[in-house]
Amino acid sequence: MKGYIRGLAAALAVVAALGLAGQASADTDGEIKYRQSVMKAVGGHMGAMATILKGKGGSKENLAGHAHAMAELSKIAGGIFPEDSDFGETRALPVIWEKPVEFKQALTAFQTEAAKLVQVAKGGDMNAFGAQFKNLGGACGGCHKKFREKK
Amino acid sequence: MKGYIRGLAAALAVVAALGLAGQASADTDGEIKYRQSVMKAVGGHMGAMATILKGKGGSKENLAGHAHAMAELSKIAGGIFPEDSDFGETRALPVIWEKPVEFKQALTAFQTEAAKLVQVAKGGDMNAFGAQFKNLGGACGGCHKKFREKK
Repeated sequence: MKGYIRGLAAALAVVAALGLAGQASADTDGEIKYRQSVMKAVGGHMGAMATILKGKGGSKENLAGHAHAMAELSKIAGGIFPEDSDFGETRALPVIWEKPVEFKQALTAFQTEAAKLVQVAKGGDMNAFGAQFKNLGGACGGCHKKFREKK
Repeated sequence: MKGYIRGLAAALAVVAALGLAGQASADTDGEIKYRQSVMKAVGGHMGAMATILKGKGGSKENLAGHAHAMAELSKIAGGIFPEDSDFGETRALPVIWEKPVEFKQALTAFQTEAAKLVQVAKGGDMNAFGAQFKNLGGACGGCHKKFREKK
Protein backbone atom coordinates (compact mmCIF):
# COMPACT_ATOMS: atom_id res chain seq x y z
CA MET A 1 0.00 0.00 0.00
CA LYS A 2 2.85 2.36 0.87
CA GLY A 3 4.34 1.67 -2.55
CA TYR A 4 1.02 2.43 -4.23
CA ILE A 5 0.67 5.73 -2.39
CA ARG A 6 4.26 6.65 -3.19
CA GLY A 7 3.60 5.82 -6.84
CA LEU A 8 0.41 7.86 -6.87
CA ALA A 9 2.15 10.80 -5.25
CA ALA A 10 4.92 10.59 -7.83
CA ALA A 11 2.36 10.47 -10.65
CA LEU A 12 0.51 13.44 -9.23
CA ALA A 13 3.79 15.32 -8.91
CA VAL A 14 4.49 14.63 -12.57
CA VAL A 15 1.01 15.82 -13.58
CA ALA A 16 1.46 18.93 -11.44
CA ALA A 17 4.87 19.55 -12.95
CA LEU A 18 3.48 19.13 -16.45
CA GLY A 19 0.61 21.41 -15.57
CA LEU A 20 2.98 24.03 -14.26
CA ALA A 21 5.22 23.65 -17.27
CA GLY A 22 2.20 24.11 -19.53
CA GLN A 23 1.18 27.16 -17.58
CA ALA A 24 4.65 28.70 -17.78
CA SER A 25 4.78 28.12 -21.50
CA ALA A 26 1.38 29.72 -22.06
CA ASP A 27 2.48 32.74 -19.98
CA THR A 28 5.71 33.01 -21.94
CA ASP A 29 3.84 33.01 -25.24
CA GLY A 30 1.46 35.65 -23.90
CA GLU A 31 4.32 37.87 -22.75
CA ILE A 32 5.99 37.57 -26.15
CA LYS A 33 2.69 38.32 -27.87
CA TYR A 34 2.16 41.36 -25.66
CA ARG A 35 5.70 42.60 -26.32
CA GLN A 36 5.21 42.21 -30.07
CA SER A 37 1.91 44.11 -29.95
CA VAL A 38 3.59 46.94 -28.02
CA MET A 39 6.44 47.02 -30.55
CA LYS A 40 3.91 46.98 -33.42
CA ALA A 41 2.29 50.07 -31.91
CA VAL A 42 5.75 51.65 -31.51
CA GLY A 43 6.49 50.95 -35.19
CA GLY A 44 3.14 52.38 -36.24
CA HIS A 45 3.61 55.63 -34.35
CA MET A 46 7.25 56.04 -35.48
CA GLY A 47 6.35 55.34 -39.12
CA ALA A 48 3.44 57.79 -38.89
CA MET A 49 5.68 60.54 -37.52
CA ALA A 50 8.37 59.84 -40.15
CA THR A 51 5.79 60.27 -42.93
CA ILE A 52 4.55 63.55 -41.45
CA LEU A 53 8.10 64.88 -40.97
CA LYS A 54 8.97 64.06 -44.58
CA GLY A 55 5.90 66.07 -45.60
CA LYS A 56 4.49 63.08 -47.47
CA GLY A 57 1.26 62.47 -45.58
CA GLY A 58 -0.69 63.04 -42.40
CA SER A 59 -0.80 66.33 -40.55
CA LYS A 60 1.65 68.12 -38.27
CA GLU A 61 -1.14 68.52 -35.75
CA ASN A 62 -1.03 64.76 -35.16
CA LEU A 63 2.64 64.75 -34.06
CA ALA A 64 1.83 65.55 -30.43
CA GLY A 65 -0.61 62.62 -30.21
CA HIS A 66 1.90 60.17 -31.66
CA ALA A 67 4.65 61.54 -29.37
CA HIS A 68 2.42 61.12 -26.34
CA ALA A 69 1.64 57.52 -27.30
CA MET A 70 5.37 56.85 -27.69
CA ALA A 71 6.04 58.17 -24.18
CA GLU A 72 3.32 55.84 -22.83
CA LEU A 73 4.75 52.92 -24.78
CA SER A 74 8.30 53.64 -23.59
CA LYS A 75 7.08 53.40 -19.99
CA ILE A 76 5.21 50.18 -20.81
CA ALA A 77 8.37 48.83 -22.47
CA GLY A 78 10.05 48.78 -19.05
CA GLY A 79 7.86 45.81 -18.11
CA ILE A 80 7.69 43.78 -21.32
CA PHE A 81 10.87 41.79 -20.87
CA PRO A 82 10.10 39.61 -17.86
CA GLU A 83 12.52 36.80 -16.99
CA ASP A 84 11.95 33.64 -19.02
CA SER A 85 10.19 35.43 -21.88
CA ASP A 86 13.08 34.52 -24.18
CA PHE A 87 11.62 31.17 -25.21
CA GLY A 88 9.37 30.81 -28.23
CA GLU A 89 8.93 32.89 -31.36
CA THR A 90 10.91 35.94 -30.34
CA ARG A 91 13.85 37.93 -31.64
CA ALA A 92 14.66 39.13 -28.12
CA LEU A 93 18.26 38.04 -27.48
CA PRO A 94 19.41 36.30 -24.27
CA VAL A 95 21.83 39.21 -23.69
CA ILE A 96 18.77 41.18 -22.44
CA TRP A 97 18.71 39.00 -19.32
CA GLU A 98 22.47 38.38 -19.24
CA LYS A 99 23.35 42.08 -19.11
CA PRO A 100 20.40 43.61 -17.25
CA VAL A 101 22.25 46.82 -16.33
CA GLU A 102 23.25 47.57 -19.91
CA PHE A 103 19.75 46.67 -21.13
CA LYS A 104 18.14 48.93 -18.56
CA GLN A 105 20.33 51.80 -19.78
CA ALA A 106 19.04 51.23 -23.32
CA LEU A 107 15.42 51.18 -22.08
CA THR A 108 15.98 54.35 -20.05
CA ALA A 109 17.38 56.08 -23.14
CA PHE A 110 14.14 55.15 -24.96
CA GLN A 111 12.03 56.57 -22.11
CA THR A 112 14.12 59.74 -21.82
CA GLU A 113 14.07 60.53 -25.55
CA ALA A 114 10.34 59.79 -25.85
CA ALA A 115 9.56 62.06 -22.87
CA LYS A 116 11.68 64.80 -24.47
CA LEU A 117 9.72 64.41 -27.73
CA VAL A 118 6.48 65.16 -25.86
CA GLN A 119 8.05 68.33 -24.45
CA VAL A 120 9.40 69.43 -27.83
CA ALA A 121 5.97 68.81 -29.42
CA LYS A 122 4.48 71.32 -26.99
CA GLY A 123 6.91 73.97 -28.27
CA GLY A 124 5.67 73.55 -31.85
CA ASP A 125 9.11 74.07 -33.46
CA MET A 126 9.21 71.60 -36.36
CA ASN A 127 13.01 71.63 -36.68
CA ALA A 128 13.41 70.90 -32.99
CA PHE A 129 10.83 68.14 -33.28
CA GLY A 130 12.67 66.60 -36.23
CA ALA A 131 15.97 66.67 -34.32
CA GLN A 132 14.42 65.05 -31.25
CA PHE A 133 12.64 62.47 -33.41
CA LYS A 134 16.08 61.53 -34.72
CA ASN A 135 17.37 61.18 -31.15
CA LEU A 136 14.45 58.91 -30.32
CA GLY A 137 15.12 56.84 -33.45
CA GLY A 138 18.74 56.56 -32.29
CA ALA A 139 17.58 55.16 -28.95
CA CYS A 140 15.40 52.59 -30.77
CA GLY A 141 18.29 51.59 -33.00
CA GLY A 142 20.79 51.46 -30.14
CA CYS A 143 18.65 48.91 -28.32
CA HIS A 144 17.67 46.87 -31.38
CA LYS A 145 21.27 46.61 -32.54
CA LYS A 146 22.51 45.00 -29.33
CA PHE A 147 19.46 43.24 -27.96
CA ARG A 148 17.38 42.10 -30.94
CA GLU A 149 18.19 39.28 -33.31
CA LYS A 150 18.82 40.35 -36.91
CA LYS A 151 16.27 39.11 -39.45
CA MET B 1 7.16 83.24 -83.95
CA LYS B 2 3.61 83.11 -82.69
CA GLY B 3 3.56 79.41 -83.51
CA TYR B 4 6.82 78.87 -81.57
CA ILE B 5 5.50 80.64 -78.52
CA ARG B 6 2.25 78.68 -78.72
CA GLY B 7 4.28 75.48 -78.96
CA LEU B 8 6.48 76.44 -76.01
CA ALA B 9 3.45 77.32 -73.93
CA ALA B 10 1.90 73.95 -74.78
CA ALA B 11 5.12 72.16 -73.87
CA LEU B 12 5.36 74.04 -70.57
CA ALA B 13 1.74 73.18 -69.84
CA VAL B 14 2.52 69.51 -70.40
CA VAL B 15 5.57 69.73 -68.10
CA ALA B 16 3.49 71.51 -65.49
CA ALA B 17 0.75 68.91 -65.80
CA LEU B 18 3.27 66.08 -65.46
CA GLY B 19 4.85 67.84 -62.51
CA LEU B 20 1.50 68.21 -60.82
CA ALA B 21 0.57 64.64 -61.62
CA GLY B 22 3.87 63.46 -60.11
CA GLN B 23 3.22 65.54 -57.02
CA ALA B 24 -0.30 64.16 -56.62
CA SER B 25 0.96 60.60 -56.93
CA ALA B 26 3.68 61.12 -54.33
CA ASP B 27 1.15 62.68 -51.96
CA THR B 28 -1.26 59.79 -52.50
CA ASP B 29 1.42 57.23 -51.64
CA GLY B 30 2.36 59.25 -48.56
CA GLU B 31 -1.24 59.47 -47.39
CA ILE B 32 -1.67 55.72 -47.84
CA LYS B 33 1.59 55.10 -45.97
CA TYR B 34 0.50 57.38 -43.16
CA ARG B 35 -2.90 55.68 -42.95
CA GLN B 36 -1.26 52.26 -42.79
CA SER B 37 1.12 53.39 -40.02
CA VAL B 38 -1.83 54.72 -38.03
CA MET B 39 -3.70 51.43 -38.51
CA LYS B 40 -0.57 49.49 -37.53
CA ALA B 41 -0.49 51.45 -34.27
CA VAL B 42 -4.23 50.77 -33.83
CA GLY B 43 -3.61 47.04 -34.32
CA GLY B 44 -0.71 47.08 -31.88
CA HIS B 45 -2.69 48.76 -29.11
CA MET B 46 -5.78 46.57 -29.68
CA GLY B 47 -3.68 43.39 -29.71
CA ALA B 48 -1.87 44.50 -26.55
CA MET B 49 -5.16 45.14 -24.72
CA ALA B 50 -6.62 41.81 -25.90
CA THR B 51 -3.59 39.97 -24.48
CA ILE B 52 -3.92 41.77 -21.14
CA LEU B 53 -7.68 41.15 -20.96
CA LYS B 54 -7.17 37.44 -21.63
CA GLY B 55 -4.71 37.42 -18.72
CA LYS B 56 -1.99 36.05 -20.97
CA GLY B 57 0.59 38.84 -20.80
CA GLY B 58 1.25 42.47 -20.00
CA SER B 59 -0.19 44.29 -17.01
CA LYS B 60 -3.64 45.72 -16.27
CA GLU B 61 -1.96 48.98 -15.32
CA ASN B 62 -1.08 49.48 -19.00
CA LEU B 63 -4.71 49.40 -20.18
CA ALA B 64 -5.28 53.11 -19.57
CA GLY B 65 -2.23 54.05 -21.66
CA HIS B 66 -3.33 51.88 -24.56
CA ALA B 67 -6.90 53.22 -24.30
CA HIS B 68 -5.63 56.79 -24.36
CA ALA B 69 -3.54 56.09 -27.46
CA MET B 70 -6.60 54.55 -29.14
CA ALA B 71 -8.63 57.70 -28.43
CA GLU B 72 -5.85 59.81 -30.00
CA LEU B 73 -5.67 57.48 -32.99
CA SER B 74 -9.45 57.53 -33.46
CA LYS B 75 -9.32 61.32 -33.70
CA ILE B 76 -6.40 61.11 -36.13
CA ALA B 77 -8.38 58.54 -38.18
CA GLY B 78 -10.87 61.29 -39.04
CA GLY B 79 -8.24 62.83 -41.33
CA ILE B 80 -6.52 59.82 -42.88
CA PHE B 81 -8.93 59.26 -45.77
CA PRO B 82 -8.43 62.35 -47.92
CA GLU B 83 -10.01 62.42 -51.40
CA ASP B 84 -7.92 60.64 -54.04
CA SER B 85 -6.05 58.46 -51.53
CA ASP B 86 -7.72 55.37 -53.00
CA PHE B 87 -5.06 54.83 -55.66
CA GLY B 88 -2.03 52.66 -55.03
CA GLU B 89 -1.36 49.83 -52.61
CA THR B 90 -4.39 50.19 -50.39
CA ARG B 91 -7.29 48.07 -49.20
CA ALA B 92 -9.42 51.18 -48.65
CA LEU B 93 -12.53 50.67 -50.81
CA PRO B 94 -13.97 53.37 -53.12
CA VAL B 95 -17.22 53.17 -51.12
CA ILE B 96 -15.42 55.32 -48.48
CA TRP B 97 -15.60 58.28 -50.85
CA GLU B 98 -18.84 57.21 -52.55
CA LYS B 99 -20.81 57.09 -49.29
CA PRO B 100 -19.16 59.79 -47.16
CA VAL B 101 -22.10 60.13 -44.76
CA GLU B 102 -22.19 56.40 -43.99
CA PHE B 103 -18.39 56.31 -43.68
CA LYS B 104 -18.38 59.27 -41.32
CA GLN B 105 -20.90 57.45 -39.11
CA ALA B 106 -18.52 54.48 -38.91
CA LEU B 107 -15.60 56.78 -38.03
CA THR B 108 -17.67 58.56 -35.39
CA ALA B 109 -18.56 55.19 -33.83
CA PHE B 110 -14.81 54.45 -33.58
CA GLN B 111 -14.18 57.81 -31.90
CA THR B 112 -17.13 57.47 -29.54
CA GLU B 113 -16.25 53.95 -28.40
CA ALA B 114 -12.54 54.81 -27.97
CA ALA B 115 -13.39 57.89 -25.89
CA LYS B 116 -15.70 55.74 -23.74
CA LEU B 117 -12.86 53.25 -23.20
CA VAL B 118 -10.69 56.02 -21.73
CA GLN B 119 -13.51 56.91 -19.32
CA VAL B 120 -14.08 53.28 -18.33
CA ALA B 121 -10.32 52.83 -17.76
CA LYS B 122 -10.46 55.62 -15.18
CA GLY B 123 -13.09 53.68 -13.24
CA GLY B 124 -10.81 50.64 -12.92
CA ASP B 125 -13.62 48.05 -13.27
CA MET B 126 -12.11 45.27 -15.34
CA ASN B 127 -15.46 43.77 -16.39
CA ALA B 128 -16.69 47.15 -17.58
CA PHE B 129 -13.39 47.66 -19.42
CA GLY B 130 -13.73 44.28 -21.12
CA ALA B 131 -17.30 45.07 -22.22
CA GLN B 132 -16.30 48.46 -23.62
CA PHE B 133 -13.25 46.94 -25.33
CA LYS B 134 -15.70 44.62 -27.09
CA ASN B 135 -17.81 47.62 -28.17
CA LEU B 136 -14.69 49.29 -29.56
CA GLY B 137 -13.76 46.09 -31.40
CA GLY B 138 -17.27 46.08 -32.84
CA ALA B 139 -16.77 49.60 -34.18
CA CYS B 140 -13.47 48.51 -35.80
CA GLY B 141 -15.13 45.50 -37.37
CA GLY B 142 -18.18 47.44 -38.53
CA CYS B 143 -15.98 49.82 -40.49
CA HIS B 144 -13.58 47.20 -41.83
CA LYS B 145 -16.43 44.99 -43.03
CA LYS B 146 -17.97 47.65 -45.25
CA PHE B 147 -15.08 49.87 -46.17
CA ARG B 148 -11.98 47.67 -46.34
CA GLU B 149 -11.15 45.16 -49.03
CA LYS B 150 -10.99 41.56 -47.86
CA LYS B 151 -7.56 39.92 -48.02
